[in-house]
Amino acid sequence: MAANLLKKSHKVSLYDVNKESVRALVAVYGSSASAASSAAEAARSADIVITMLPSSPHVREVYEGSVFNIVKGSGKLLIDSSTIDPNVTKALASAALKDGLRMVDAPVSGGVGGAEAGTLTFMVGGSKSDFDSAKVVLEKMGGKIVHCGEAGTGQVAKLCNNLILGISMNAVSEAMNLGVKLGADPKVLAGIINSSSGRCWSSDTYNPVPGVMPNVPASRGYSGGFGSALMAKDLGLAIDAARTAGVALPTGSAAAAVYALMMSQGAGEYKTKDFSSVYSFLAGNKA
Amino acid sequence: MAANLLKKSHKVSLYDVNKESVRALVAVYGSSASAASSAAEAARSADIVITMLPSSPHVREVYEGSVFNIVKGSGKLLIDSSTIDPNVTKALASAALKDGLRMVDAPVSGGVGGAEAGTLTFMVGGSKSDFDSAKVVLEKMGGKIVHCGEAGTGQVAKLCNNLILGISMNAVSEAMNLGVKLGADPKVLAGIINSSSGRCWSSDTYNPVPGVMPNVPASRGYSGGFGSALMAKDLGLAIDAARTAGVALPTGSAAAAVYALMMSQGAGEYKTKDFSSVYSFLAGNKA
Amino acid sequence: MAANLLKKSHKVSLYDVNKESVRALVAVYGSSASAASSAAEAARSADIVITMLPSSPHVREVYEGSVFNIVKGSGKLLIDSSTIDPNVTKALASAALKDGLRMVDAPVSGGVGGAEAGTLTFMVGGSKSDFDSAKVVLEKMGGKIVHCGEAGTGQVAKLCNNLILGISMNAVSEAMNLGVKLGADPKVLAGIINSSSGRCWSSDTYNPVPGVMPNVPASRGYSGGFGSALMAKDLGLAIDAARTAGVALPTGSAAAAVYALMMSQGAGEYKTKDFSSVYSFLAGNKA
Amino acid sequence: MAANLLKKSHKVSLYDVNKESVRALVAVYGSSASAASSAAEAARSADIVITMLPSSPHVREVYEGSVFNIVKGSGKLLIDSSTIDPNVTKALASAALKDGLRMVDAPVSGGVGGAEAGTLTFMVGGSKSDFDSAKVVLEKMGGKIVHCGEAGTGQVAKLCNNLILGISMNAVSEAMNLGVKLGADPKVLAGIINSSSGRCWSSDTYNPVPGVMPNVPASRGYSGGFGSALMAKDLGLAIDAARTAGVALPTGSAAAAVYALMMSQGAGEYKTKDFSSVYSFLAGNKA
Repeated sequence: MAANLLKKSHKVSLYDVNKESVRALVAVYGSSASAASSAAEAARSADIVITMLPSSPHVREVYEGSVFNIVKGSGKLLIDSSTIDPNVTKALASAALKDGLRMVDAPVSGGVGGAEAGTLTFMVGGSKSDFDSAKVVLEKMGGKIVHCGEAGTGQVAKLCNNLILGISMNAVSEAMNLGVKLGADPKVLAGIINSSSGRCWSSDTYNPVPGVMPNVPASRGYSGGFGSALMAKDLGLAIDAARTAGVALPTGSAAAAVYALMMSQGAGEYKTKDFSSVYSFLAGNKA
Repeated sequence: MAANLLKKSHKVSLYDVNKESVRALVAVYGSSASAASSAAEAARSADIVITMLPSSPHVREVYEGSVFNIVKGSGKLLIDSSTIDPNVTKALASAALKDGLRMVDAPVSGGVGGAEAGTLTFMVGGSKSDFDSAKVVLEKMGGKIVHCGEAGTGQVAKLCNNLILGISMNAVSEAMNLGVKLGADPKVLAGIINSSSGRCWSSDTYNPVPGVMPNVPASRGYSGGFGSALMAKDLGLAIDAARTAGVALPTGSAAAAVYALMMSQGAGEYKTKDFSSVYSFLAGNKA
Repeated sequence: MAANLLKKSHKVSLYDVNKESVRALVAVYGSSASAASSAAEAARSADIVITMLPSSPHVREVYEGSVFNIVKGSGKLLIDSSTIDPNVTKALASAALKDGLRMVDAPVSGGVGGAEAGTLTFMVGGSKSDFDSAKVVLEKMGGKIVHCGEAGTGQVAKLCNNLILGISMNAVSEAMNLGVKLGADPKVLAGIINSSSGRCWSSDTYNPVPGVMPNVPASRGYSGGFGSALMAKDLGLAIDAARTAGVALPTGSAAAAVYALMMSQGAGEYKTKDFSSVYSFLAGNKA
Repeated sequence: MAANLLKKSHKVSLYDVNKESVRALVAVYGSSASAASSAAEAARSADIVITMLPSSPHVREVYEGSVFNIVKGSGKLLIDSSTIDPNVTKALASAALKDGLRMVDAPVSGGVGGAEAGTLTFMVGGSKSDFDSAKVVLEKMGGKIVHCGEAGTGQVAKLCNNLILGISMNAVSEAMNLGVKLGADPKVLAGIINSSSGRCWSSDTYNPVPGVMPNVPASRGYSGGFGSALMAKDLGLAIDAARTAGVALPTGSAAAAVYALMMSQGAGEYKTKDFSSVYSFLAGNKA
């Protein structure tokens, strides 16, 4: 994502716990890219702060622990592209406002493939004017920038989408496994489903059965793509948010249990495989 | 379906336990439609026998109990459009062959809406030549006639499609309910999902949230459409077939339990409501 | 079971598709045991007919296919100890009555261990007087003979008990696996559970964690005991009966999916292992 | 619990956000009971600090936010009887140690009934010597004080026990509902289960079917007892802990979804009903 900004002539002050990835960018884009010694330092000099972190506690630490203090009162735009608990997002946006800052949540979907193809989707939560400001920069990194509503709704949209995705990948895997075991040809079966009411992204764009589609993880040993552990993390966020909201997720919970089960088999080989490898697990194949 | 054949100038000998529906067709298409006194009598005079019955035992009774005996050795084409256990289908097709008959399974999807719009899909299992013969007549009733493979694979395709459908309708309902409870606008949320990896027929064509789409059951009190009890029946067939085949359906079983639970509430109001009313149940609304 | 009758000086006419097991009994109990050439022949000469068969179709075939005809009008007592669909049981009992026969269902629990220890439980459905007649002979084979109510209720009791058993074995396995992974000592943890509200037979009598109890399958590599495939079969019967009765089994369905999943792994090693090996599967150990 | 300490002549400094309950105790036990103005003040003057709070953030706030600072270096014994995330418990115990304090986790089971009957069980995690110190005071409040292992294992034991409990209550409810719908007498059925392998606390001590047992919530409209919302909270803690530990809880997740679903029906009547009312929900009765 940073590379896309640099390619488009933005100046970027970079910070990552993985210093090697920062160094690599500075080597290529030396005049525009600079390495900051901390997230706070990177924030201090920037007009716009963009963060992408693994979990809610990390995001709280960076913003509540330093960035808010450093940029307080500056009116700077803060864009958090992490996928985290929407309640944390809402709380941070509200704290930012009190500190005279503007914060939007902008989680991204589309994965590594989407990043390469420039087709990432940013789901943005925040006021209309903050969205408009954020859109200008996000457009440099993604193909689609969607305004979902007030602060937090970007996270909500991401969670809801990935909840459906995690379940429907299971659904397609269960159905294809059943069909194959009952003697159906997987390509013919997928073709029928894709033109009928079972049609879905997990079936027509990312089919989990090896050989049904070219250029998907299933046809290259489930390498690349969106790891099972990441899908399990997103389903976990949805389940937590649902508990707080008093919402039941019976099939979402069942899907989460399947991913947890597959990841606990063997030496954990499934953790880093693409999440469509749930087909392989259900079919009783080796990871 | 019979009306479509009659409209296209076929002569049809009709039998139904509901004599009223037969009488209605005879009244309109008197010269071509005739009422038979039994399934066997209807079969005796026909070139092609078409059946559509509620469950496996009914289909066995009609074919093993009378039709096979009546038409034995005639080489007649038998088309069963019921949605039943694929193992029963295979056994009947094999018995038909021994009796010098040709039998294909041709379950249908698309529901009442599809029947009216002429967009029904027939999923056909049988030999290529029997499929070709069946296609000629099935085209009068449906928009798409697909050859799925040998006998039984029509049923397999139907079950696998509806398994995905039953699960993904739950998935969309859980996600939309979660999103709405967390403050998202349902139309905006559905729009994001529909252009992202959560996209599926249950979301983009048949959205279960009232008001998101016009002309779907959700926007007319969940009337019409495909009843919850029918979806529960199809999921039950998939679960039975999976047990025989040694296949696990964790999310399919969870979805089936949700439909069973919603139908057991109140006075059973949900049984006849469209299956997308699972959204209403999850949201804690009245049936 | 037949050996127990023979030991107690009953004359027994034996039939089994496995002729070797019949021959073994005749070799030992030659004066009292005789080999019949079919179930029907065995029934013809007997005062009391006892059957134990693997599934509903087998039971229907034996009774409807021959035994009812052979013993019609004789008033003989027919005891079916198979574990099958309660609806089939009810239908057969009703047919028997019309044929002037007395039929009870008497499925058994306690497994191989119970058979050896003489502690089998027979759950009997039928009229009080038929129960009293059956009790006399069943007492020779089991430690506890319980009258459950009218015909079919023996099956119902068996199914309901095993439904709880299949779920609670999963529950204990999930909880023990969680506790061990979080650092608890399994023996200490089991002790606390067994004196608290998590107490159950799966925990205090048949603990699934190796080393927690002596003399249970878990402590001998999950050999012996009640095979996972048999538990899966019984859960399948419960799920079928529930569907017919309009009853939802959310946790029962989840448990059934776990057994199906574990049996589909590897080369099916789990099928013949005791059902408590679900702990091993959840813990990610080898079958 | 405080009343039990006061009855046994301990001096107790009390703090509760509900000031009325403190006032009531001071009114009765004036010489021994005193009202503190904050948790910190109560801690300052005490030899032993006992806390019981609704959730992990509350516990962190009380200890990290004030108590640790107030009593630092005093070697005081801190007993937390809240039911919370075991990872939080471990972190606090470790922080307490650094501050020269001794902390044990001592969650309690047995409910209101157990408190009245003096049969509460305290599950204690901490060093052997800290356990011995805590036992002296906990014995005044409970019937059984169990040492589970190092810090955090008291929480682990509580979570694991309640995980089994939440699932087995569902299991018994599903089975009893199935049995009753299939014509069994609930008392007879419960009797058979209780002397067979389905036996468990949820069946033999706390049966969820109205009329099967006296003196349980099921026989008084599911009032009193352990609320569904509390069970849902404990299952949520188990699911969170399992996610962190990489453990799958397929039936635990299914049970949690059932409680979430029942609480989302109607106006939320089920939230305060005893958790055994899941039978009522499954049976399609009114809350």
